[in-house]
Amino acid sequence: MQHFTWSPKEKQLARKVFERAAAAEEQELLERFKTKAVGLKNLEDLWALQFAIRESEREYQQKYDYRYSQLIVVFARLVREERISMDDLRGLSEDKLKCVEGLAAL
Amino acid sequence: MQHFTWSPKEKQLARKVFERAAAAEEQELLERFKTKAVGLKNLEDLWALQFAIRESEREYQQKYDYRYSQLIVVFARLVREERISMDDLRGLSEDKLKCVEGLAAL
Repeated sequence: MQHFTWSPKEKQLARKVFERAAAAEEQELLERFKTKAVGLKNLEDLWALQFAIRESEREYQQKYDYRYSQLIVVFARLVREERISMDDLRGLSEDKLKCVEGLAAL
Repeated sequence: MQHFTWSPKEKQLARKVFERAAAAEEQELLERFKTKAVGLKNLEDLWALQFAIRESEREYQQKYDYRYSQLIVVFARLVREERISMDDLRGLSEDKLKCVEGLAAL
């Protein structure tokens, strides 16, 4: 993915789409874990919660990797997870869009 | 601590005191983390919560170690933390009580 170059306008768009998806997932995670915490019955639940948060942290850090060398893969994953749509990415070059779409469909 | 022997009656008492303290701390931990979860504002808070649970788990596992070789130390710690009182342990042999009291005062 290193061969793509990003124009200032593309970078601006990419940043916006990325930040919006990250913020939405942040809220989702906070809500999910608040709800889980309410239902804690015993220490096993609490230890399991800890493990679940750790897994979510790993996944989140891996998913939201804002490096231009990774961004196509990141966007493809977000499209696959329906966190963003191809429409959100309109404004990126055709070759990038094709690449995102192709990877998303894998 | 390995030189103490525990009579069946002492074991019964020890088990009861131990279980009661463990159950009380379980409730305390559940309440503490439920309250913390309510106040989650962002992902940094969530990752910090994970770390705090992990620390509590380590501490809890270390504290509630029901081996007769460890029990004097365990009770001394619980007395020091005011989770149990020396009164709760009445029924254990004098030498054990002295040892618990001495360690608790360290």
